[in-house]
Amino acid sequence: MSDKKLWSGRFSEPTDAFVEAFTASVEFDQRLYRYDIQGSIAHATMLAKAGILTVEERDTIIAGLQQIQAQIEAGQFEWSVELEDVHMNVESRLTSAIGDAGKKLHTGRSRNDQVATDVRLYLRDEIETIRAEILRLQQALLDKAEQEADTIMPGFTHLQTAQPVTFGHHLMAWFEMLERDRERLADCNKRVNIMPLGAAALAGTTYPIDRYYTAELLGFARPSENSLDSVSDRDFAIEFSAAAALIMMHLSRMSEELIIWSSAQFNFVDLSDSFCTGSSIMPQKKNPDVPELVRGKTGRIFGHLMSLLTLMKGQPLAYNKDNQEDKEPLFDTVDNLKGSLKVFADMIPAITCKPDSMREAAMKGFATATDLADYLVRKGTPFRDAHEVVGKAVALGVSKGCDLADLSLEELRGFSEQIDDDVFQVLTLEGSVAARDHIGGTAPAQVRAAISRARQRLDSE
Amino acid sequence: MSDKKLWSGRFSEPTDAFVEAFTASVEFDQRLYRYDIQGSIAHATMLAKAGILTVEERDTIIAGLQQIQAQIEAGQFEWSVELEDVHMNVESRLTSAIGDAGKKLHTGRSRNDQVATDVRLYLRDEIETIRAEILRLQQALLDKAEQEADTIMPGFTHLQTAQPVTFGHHLMAWFEMLERDRERLADCNKRVNIMPLGAAALAGTTYPIDRYYTAELLGFARPSENSLDSVSDRDFAIEFSAAAALIMMHLSRMSEELIIWSSAQFNFVDLSDSFCTGSSIMPQKKNPDVPELVRGKTGRIFGHLMSLLTLMKGQPLAYNKDNQEDKEPLFDTVDNLKGSLKVFADMIPAITCKPDSMREAAMKGFATATDLADYLVRKGTPFRDAHEVVGKAVALGVSKGCDLADLSLEELRGFSEQIDDDVFQVLTLEGSVAARDHIGGTAPAQVRAAISRARQRLDSE
Amino acid sequence: MSDKKLWSGRFSEPTDAFVEAFTASVEFDQRLYRYDIQGSIAHATMLAKAGILTVEERDTIIAGLQQIQAQIEAGQFEWSVELEDVHMNVESRLTSAIGDAGKKLHTGRSRNDQVATDVRLYLRDEIETIRAEILRLQQALLDKAEQEADTIMPGFTHLQTAQPVTFGHHLMAWFEMLERDRERLADCNKRVNIMPLGAAALAGTTYPIDRYYTAELLGFARPSENSLDSVSDRDFAIEFSAAAALIMMHLSRMSEELIIWSSAQFNFVDLSDSFCTGSSIMPQKKNPDVPELVRGKTGRIFGHLMSLLTLMKGQPLAYNKDNQEDKEPLFDTVDNLKGSLKVFADMIPAITCKPDSMREAAMKGFATATDLADYLVRKGTPFRDAHEVVGKAVALGVSKGCDLADLSLEELRGFSEQIDDDVFQVLTLEGSVAARDHIGGTAPAQVRAAISRARQRLDSE
Amino acid sequence: MSDKKLWSGRFSEPTDAFVEAFTASVEFDQRLYRYDIQGSIAHATMLAKAGILTVEERDTIIAGLQQIQAQIEAGQFEWSVELEDVHMNVESRLTSAIGDAGKKLHTGRSRNDQVATDVRLYLRDEIETIRAEILRLQQALLDKAEQEADTIMPGFTHLQTAQPVTFGHHLMAWFEMLERDRERLADCNKRVNIMPLGAAALAGTTYPIDRYYTAELLGFARPSENSLDSVSDRDFAIEFSAAAALIMMHLSRMSEELIIWSSAQFNFVDLSDSFCTGSSIMPQKKNPDVPELVRGKTGRIFGHLMSLLTLMKGQPLAYNKDNQEDKEPLFDTVDNLKGSLKVFADMIPAITCKPDSMREAAMKGFATATDLADYLVRKGTPFRDAHEVVGKAVALGVSKGCDLADLSLEELRGFSEQIDDDVFQVLTLEGSVAARDHIGGTAPAQVRAAISRARQRLDSE
Repeated sequence: MSDKKLWSGRFSEPTDAFVEAFTASVEFDQRLYRYDIQGSIAHATMLAKAGILTVEERDTIIAGLQQIQAQIEAGQFEWSVELEDVHMNVESRLTSAIGDAGKKLHTGRSRNDQVATDVRLYLRDEIETIRAEILRLQQALLDKAEQEADTIMPGFTHLQTAQPVTFGHHLMAWFEMLERDRERLADCNKRVNIMPLGAAALAGTTYPIDRYYTAELLGFARPSENSLDSVSDRDFAIEFSAAAALIMMHLSRMSEELIIWSSAQFNFVDLSDSFCTGSSIMPQKKNPDVPELVRGKTGRIFGHLMSLLTLMKGQPLAYNKDNQEDKEPLFDTVDNLKGSLKVFADMIPAITCKPDSMREAAMKGFATATDLADYLVRKGTPFRDAHEVVGKAVALGVSKGCDLADLSLEELRGFSEQIDDDVFQVLTLEGSVAARDHIGGTAPAQVRAAISRARQRLDSE
Repeated sequence: MSDKKLWSGRFSEPTDAFVEAFTASVEFDQRLYRYDIQGSIAHATMLAKAGILTVEERDTIIAGLQQIQAQIEAGQFEWSVELEDVHMNVESRLTSAIGDAGKKLHTGRSRNDQVATDVRLYLRDEIETIRAEILRLQQALLDKAEQEADTIMPGFTHLQTAQPVTFGHHLMAWFEMLERDRERLADCNKRVNIMPLGAAALAGTTYPIDRYYTAELLGFARPSENSLDSVSDRDFAIEFSAAAALIMMHLSRMSEELIIWSSAQFNFVDLSDSFCTGSSIMPQKKNPDVPELVRGKTGRIFGHLMSLLTLMKGQPLAYNKDNQEDKEPLFDTVDNLKGSLKVFADMIPAITCKPDSMREAAMKGFATATDLADYLVRKGTPFRDAHEVVGKAVALGVSKGCDLADLSLEELRGFSEQIDDDVFQVLTLEGSVAARDHIGGTAPAQVRAAISRARQRLDSE
Repeated sequence: MSDKKLWSGRFSEPTDAFVEAFTASVEFDQRLYRYDIQGSIAHATMLAKAGILTVEERDTIIAGLQQIQAQIEAGQFEWSVELEDVHMNVESRLTSAIGDAGKKLHTGRSRNDQVATDVRLYLRDEIETIRAEILRLQQALLDKAEQEADTIMPGFTHLQTAQPVTFGHHLMAWFEMLERDRERLADCNKRVNIMPLGAAALAGTTYPIDRYYTAELLGFARPSENSLDSVSDRDFAIEFSAAAALIMMHLSRMSEELIIWSSAQFNFVDLSDSFCTGSSIMPQKKNPDVPELVRGKTGRIFGHLMSLLTLMKGQPLAYNKDNQEDKEPLFDTVDNLKGSLKVFADMIPAITCKPDSMREAAMKGFATATDLADYLVRKGTPFRDAHEVVGKAVALGVSKGCDLADLSLEELRGFSEQIDDDVFQVLTLEGSVAARDHIGGTAPAQVRAAISRARQRLDSE
Repeated sequence: MSDKKLWSGRFSEPTDAFVEAFTASVEFDQRLYRYDIQGSIAHATMLAKAGILTVEERDTIIAGLQQIQAQIEAGQFEWSVELEDVHMNVESRLTSAIGDAGKKLHTGRSRNDQVATDVRLYLRDEIETIRAEILRLQQALLDKAEQEADTIMPGFTHLQTAQPVTFGHHLMAWFEMLERDRERLADCNKRVNIMPLGAAALAGTTYPIDRYYTAELLGFARPSENSLDSVSDRDFAIEFSAAAALIMMHLSRMSEELIIWSSAQFNFVDLSDSFCTGSSIMPQKKNPDVPELVRGKTGRIFGHLMSLLTLMKGQPLAYNKDNQEDKEPLFDTVDNLKGSLKVFADMIPAITCKPDSMREAAMKGFATATDLADYLVRKGTPFRDAHEVVGKAVALGVSKGCDLADLSLEELRGFSEQIDDDVFQVLTLEGSVAARDHIGGTAPAQVRAAISRARQRLDSE
């Protein structure tokens, strides 16, 4: 009977063969086997404590499950589509291995609470891994930022030179984005780490189960509060996907910058050959494939978030077959997110920055125009008037093809008599950067202080 | 000069008229006026403390701003599209009212950090309001659940009768969804409530500002850590939108159930006339417009989330004009979310449930089949075998057009000799419901305990 | 050298191993092998005609490619991740099999135009298959609609009984949705069936290629007009995905109806056992898994559309590595769309409708209230007044718990003296349905006429 | 009675005030007034032809409606939220103006088919306007492309210099994207331009209406085939939104390029001051606001598409209140799409290209490396070997900091003895560009031919 449907009692016609394959999930949910077995062992342990199984039955079940896990991990387990999913495959094998005790394992639970438990155990693990990868990437950024705390580059708004900043400061902006991401995942995990097991099909079970005990065995913070909610809730997967979408959005922004900076025109950084590929037709090409691909993968993760939201829209309680569609987007999100973070964490230390190009770019583009305005304000001009004065000086620079620092004192005084010889110090890049000396500012001292605070934060976790 | 661009110094051609209207944001960002003024007052206060403004200048500025706020609230303020946005409109008016001191207000800040501050102040307020509306809805659910803790209805999976539950239990599933939503918003707010002000355009400012002081004045938890990140970060809006999407997804599920339950076929509930509308052509219609509309609004909120994610994808740092597009989706999300929650919180107490229809529906559909299987397990049949026995009994019931409880003992014993007279107690709805007596289960005692725990949780906040 | 990168000339460091796997596409793009080989054969044929290859080289290449295709189809081809993609795998194998002639095949093309060609050839085929599946489903609907052209059921708006319709009419609504879908795919195909080959990397090639000839060999309507556009355009994949999203949206609506109709409360249809599955815990369950799963898959397809749109947002021309991410969403869309259509086309003929339940439901719910209003209008009452009169009669029916036809003539005349004995004919279901006798109306004669027009339309294609 | 609900007969409680505002659509659907009146005039004309209205009634109604239209356009119409929507507002005003004849206008129709007709009339008009705006933008591109048919710039893949192209060729890539967009809208319009009127609430009407006549009066291609489908179908709005999303995606790509090209580092183009704005703090800034804002608006339009798809997911037939949510995303899509196209069509002629910067950039970056490989192939080297030879030459150039054309003949011959003196012609930009001389290639002659074909195509419409 190994492949007879475990629910066939009521049916008169067999399932259509295509329908069987179409509705089966085993091809993708088999990756949950470890969590399925972990959950079953805890469930059996609890059933024995509650007197629903004998100690012998419990031990036979646990041994059988461990053997199945070993078989799976040795690649010796044959998955059957007719048995629909990972749960039925494991249980059916268990029963053929250990007999009647295997048939008792499903007492007091249902696939509805079982799969919800499996996915939560899986996701809890993956969140931990992902948070560790983010941390590794953050540490790479901290190291790089420390090296480049004094390296001056143009800061951009609207991709136009705005004010000089340091490359270390820029990298610390990336660090901050990732810090929020790591926090968000920790918050998300609070809602993942709740145990649905014991909700059974939808209403709870008539057996005297001890859900607190099972939760403890599985390391869950607590059992869930409502059985109907437990089997229908997929919030945790959506919340995780939204957090993943934010991470990918951040990586897409870093990627965009790396791609632009790698262009011959910007030439701010050099990505290591190991992270680039060539062209089948253009022998000179060295393409920043890794950041491009990560930028492209952003769409994929956004799409999965939208899939999951759409999936749940308008579903009546409690469980519906629609929910089977929650797994593939979630798994693909996890895989691509981990891959993208890993490749970034590996790539960042291998980036070479080109301080000369950066500096040259900062020299052009009137990057210190705001400093001139601030100078005038300090001399007593209201900010809005100073802004206008400097605007006119810039217009002269544009027409003469030179930067502000290249204008003569006379020319500058043509716009405001408050300008004196000391103005030229204000117009240097170093002066400009060092002057932004408050928490969050780009002054190298502030960047170093931010790095130091960040290291403390990470160490204290 | 009231309408001269505040940045026109460098430009030789005027802005195209259509471009002016196309790029202006004042039509929608004027709703931020209160937060813009609140931020400016704090900024001026800090500037005075830091010696950048005199005490007189500060006081003149604050008085001017308060007067502008009064004018706006009295509907006497004329917004100018030429002045682009709320910030320029307010500042320009301030300067024309109080003269040169007004021009000094923008010292040490930029519109980039100003707008980020305004939106965070706004969203912090709205999150508080939204959490209060969720709470109100939760309390309505608690009251209703308490009234209906014993009311039996069919629990559904796949919209097929599964097992009997109580209506109170079902309502508590809704409560739990909303409890996660409320938590998620609190977590989101931790990342909203950080102050970007002081980041200026992107690099910080050369003035000796005190960002901790401004943060304290505005009730922010702390100033942000990195100026580039501060003006480019829109995570908080996206995280909020994702939380909003989850709430709307939940409301869409409740709506779906209310709509199905209001159908003549289900007839489980009656929505108050006040929450329904009629038809222009069919005189008999009483349509559940409110849940339908809320279900429809789900799409809108999902769409806004996608807008914001797409908006930020691939943007290089720091600020780009793209970001102006963050406001409308955010505002519309807030408005529709608040409206949907309000209308639900008003509607729930006005719902009449129809216990007779519910009970009748639960009587049909073999709702106690699992109880029969559990009965057999307790008599010693392994669960999987019991499942098959009951499946066959159900098939007989289907063919005879009757429920399990309507089969004779003899008929039942035809499937298993372990069935005795005591089976009929097990097949009652009350027995079935009461037997699911563990945390999360549908037993009325458990539902009452869950309500009590929930009340404690809400009270202790 | 078999696995040496075909572009390694310029590089000093080897590709990182993880990067190699992360950026490789061969695991998913190998499904294009048939189109890749088809394109290469046409390309070689054209190169020979243009004198760029000799006839012997052409023939050797074609024989080599055919052999590779045979190997792949026999499962004897070993795909190498180091060779990145399907193109490099095939070409590398070709060269090791036939020597230098193989190295000449890539003359005058690039992977950029090659992959764009492959995907278009693939999608053109799949569109044809999908249109055929839609047609098969439409024909199943026509047959069913013909059988049920007279079967009366309640028509719903707001899931409230509105007016009686026939089941055949309802099925023809589904037919019409699908007809638009089929049309849309045909329109989409006009933009798929354009040949990018010859665009080479981005600018065209210096060889005297004949793109009209290659297009003719491959059955394309014409070569593309601009090389930069040709290698960067992914519109066709997005347009197809949007058409797919609409189809899935339609299937989600049909699914929703089938699920609601299969509930014990509605009981309008019975799905064949072959298209349902059972429960691991509840022995009585017969779940409409197929429509539920299809409804769930809607999210997946919407998500893929969003992926592809996001992918292309803000990409500068011409080709970027991001574009590699276009394939998996497209392939998964095609697979799930085909599966969903197939399973629907198989399921529809196996649906049993339950005319008695449908009729009973139509009898309740004041389905003929509009007919009464129309009756009053024909007697001279303005429509709006008639509407109000009938509303009051319905209110009486609600309070008495009976339908309009159950009110006495006296009671009815209490609302309007224009009501006479002949009113009761108007209140019958058959009378109501038959009276909607114009194109698009639910009268059985109109439904039959619509079926007949539909059959003619399909036959004339 | 002006504000009494037109459907209140059956109800005992009044609508909750907040619910009234929450469910009303008049604030946004009033923009449909012109189409609503146009539809009503056609409907009245048909009713009179069918003998359902007298000629006098028809004329009174038409005159009344025309007067209302005049009032609305003069700003003298007071919209009432209590009257819910544009239809009820107009009809209620009509009745108070002309008495009983007004009450007869709604004979044989319902708001369900009325609103579907209004939106289709609206969208048909807007599609025409949008197609005209696309055309205007295309013509601007053709003119610019003609001017710049010989202007050499670097063609990019992966934002790395790939091969030289002409700026005219690049602009023609943009032209082609838009040409598909225009085609797609025309195809979409085939499915928009179908008349739902006559479907009434969902089942058709009992009056002897003539739908072919009304369709003719309104310029529709034909009446719809199925009444249930007619009132529930929103495909046309979704298909339009998907077409709009593709257009915005295209504009986002053009925007991205304009922004990158406007950077000081690329410096390929200068946008006119009229399409840029300045900074409130940095006096030197000239920001490419228009392309940035358009790029940002892409998210908005993608989001609306997702809104509409989500809206319709899983809706049972026929009309549900959810559908009211179709209008705002559609209207906002139309408005922003028109604005974005208009501003682009105005901006393109005002762009100044900088041929010297473009040429200088093309000179760097080994843009003619492929030409060298092709040269070797023509001398008898298999393409793959030539590719490797050139790769090594490029590596030498990188290490020496010079381009291929700057290597000596001796150095080049160190890589292949087939290289001769004639190689330096091949390495010129003009030679490279002119050599890509086939349909779709970048040779100036081909670009001019493409422009000429394009003009013919546009003229022949």
